[in-house]
Amino acid sequence: MSYITQDKLVILGAAGAIGSNMTQSALTMELTPNVCMYDPFEKGLEGAAEEIYHCAFPGASVTWTTDIGEALSDAKYLISSGGAPRKEGMTREDLLKGNTEIAAQLGKDIREYAPGLNFGVIIFNPADITGLTTLVHSGLAAGKIGTLAALDSTRLQTALAQHFGVEQDDVTGCRTYGGHGEMMAVFQSRAKVAGTPLTDLIGTDKLTEEDWEKLLERVKQGGKRIIQLRGRSSFQSPAHQSLLMLKAVMDGQGYPWPSGVYVDDASAGFEKIMMAMETELGSEGLSWSIPEGTEEELYELQASYQHLAKLRDEVIEMGVLPSLNEWGKVNPNL
Amino acid sequence: MSYITQDKLVILGAAGAIGSNMTQSALTMELTPNVCMYDPFEKGLEGAAEEIYHCAFPGASVTWTTDIGEALSDAKYLISSGGAPRKEGMTREDLLKGNTEIAAQLGKDIREYAPGLNFGVIIFNPADITGLTTLVHSGLAAGKIGTLAALDSTRLQTALAQHFGVEQDDVTGCRTYGGHGEMMAVFQSRAKVAGTPLTDLIGTDKLTEEDWEKLLERVKQGGKRIIQLRGRSSFQSPAHQSLLMLKAVMDGQGYPWPSGVYVDDASAGFEKIMMAMETELGSEGLSWSIPEGTEEELYELQASYQHLAKLRDEVIEMGVLPSLNEWGKVNPNL
Repeated sequence: MSYITQDKLVILGAAGAIGSNMTQSALTMELTPNVCMYDPFEKGLEGAAEEIYHCAFPGASVTWTTDIGEALSDAKYLISSGGAPRKEGMTREDLLKGNTEIAAQLGKDIREYAPGLNFGVIIFNPADITGLTTLVHSGLAAGKIGTLAALDSTRLQTALAQHFGVEQDDVTGCRTYGGHGEMMAVFQSRAKVAGTPLTDLIGTDKLTEEDWEKLLERVKQGGKRIIQLRGRSSFQSPAHQSLLMLKAVMDGQGYPWPSGVYVDDASAGFEKIMMAMETELGSEGLSWSIPEGTEEELYELQASYQHLAKLRDEVIEMGVLPSLNEWGKVNPNL
Repeated sequence: MSYITQDKLVILGAAGAIGSNMTQSALTMELTPNVCMYDPFEKGLEGAAEEIYHCAFPGASVTWTTDIGEALSDAKYLISSGGAPRKEGMTREDLLKGNTEIAAQLGKDIREYAPGLNFGVIIFNPADITGLTTLVHSGLAAGKIGTLAALDSTRLQTALAQHFGVEQDDVTGCRTYGGHGEMMAVFQSRAKVAGTPLTDLIGTDKLTEEDWEKLLERVKQGGKRIIQLRGRSSFQSPAHQSLLMLKAVMDGQGYPWPSGVYVDDASAGFEKIMMAMETELGSEGLSWSIPEGTEEELYELQASYQHLAKLRDEVIEMGVLPSLNEWGKVNPNL
């Protein structure tokens, strides 16, 4: 095995479906031999760690702990899938409060134990808001924390490939920005199917307006569909794609999909938010630009931002995030 | 991505925990872009396939089907985790009959649809017996079907590393042969811990006889322990290690653990059986030799063989395997 780096990677939520898959995949991808598995659920964590030991990755030095300080200490890379799932009788607000509180604590823990973190990916729901909350409390530079945003785009690519009966790679330029699922802004103007612009296909016999609307709905409900089919939330694709984000920071070879990134540019109409933008992922983390698109697409992106800003403001009202004008005090990098 | 081969790999049981993990890992390992997922459970299979599509592996051409003929057609590589689990009220014999019947049908299907199979790994329980049954009915050459046997050895390596507090790689030469779990023959005479022969450590303060017995018991119960800890059977390590077996056949770079292999050498005391031996895995599949060991170890190996032979004879009595002198008629390669 020739690992890309020797830097410590900590996987938070490692007893869960996403986290345990991620541990195995990180080693299979040969990212780093130094992986620390963290989870508050000790028994399941030990079981997940045993599975990894039985894989016998050459040169690997995998540890596990229920102590967050030990887990984060000296960590250079981090992925957290460690939110709480929505439970029976829980309102959307309960979930938002619970998971942003977890994110705020994670941010504080990063500040205390891993101030030298090079890059972290936050993937527990609602990821843009938990990522933002983590970043604010972590004290890190804006580009050091990102969220997974690729799956909406890969689901669009999948659905178009299936509709047209072509290989997935033959569908290019699929891009969704802003928030996820219902909130996403689909940028169709740059997508091509086997070289033909998608906009030349929509509204023809090959893809009627009605088919396109159905397809978009399917993409937006992509996560729910996995639950219906498998009886469980998606875990393989989030694990795989978030590791590719880390890989890009480690090897500098780039990442082909949009990521959720901290955006604060009042002149562009986006303030103090985390959302999927056109992004680059390199050794210093994330940088972003406003995606190219039609007026309508950019309007959708602004609407998606507004939706996220409302969620962010709810979290401020809950007291989990400071008010906007206080962010610089909590995190001088923002 | 630079895949090792373009040959078709079919994963049987792809809707399950092992099979779906294997599909993701096979693509992460860049074995081949041409992966076909098969499972009789259509809904779960589609869900597992969607997850893989959302991973968006570059260049991948992943298909899924509930038609075994379509799945096996032109397949060069195969892994089957597609047995039935033991259910409430089922006796050991019920399980043996059920799973060997599945294996016999798989062998017949290979004969019909994939006579050009280059290598197949069978990993549903009891794997040595299901692998043997598959081989006999497949008509393939003996080295073309193998079973996963590594986990007993990697569990021994894990347990020794944990006991001595050393890195896993510092424990070398861990080898178990014969059958699995209770049936395994542990060859301790070649194992070393940080360079010191294990036999020099057993019976000292560093590893008392009692500790060693406990450790061995833990290795033998390694699978059960995963179930106790995680509430589910191990799936990550079997997926990973069986893919490494395929990888060795594809890339000719070797495989570091013993595999289950067809053994028929009356002069050596092993007839018409599949069991873990010292093996080499190359482009032509498996070849084997009798492991080096002490007299006691070789006696244990013979005892393990006898146990497996008894199971095999039960399957013959059930009518799922032909009587021993008829095997050449069913499979002229044996």
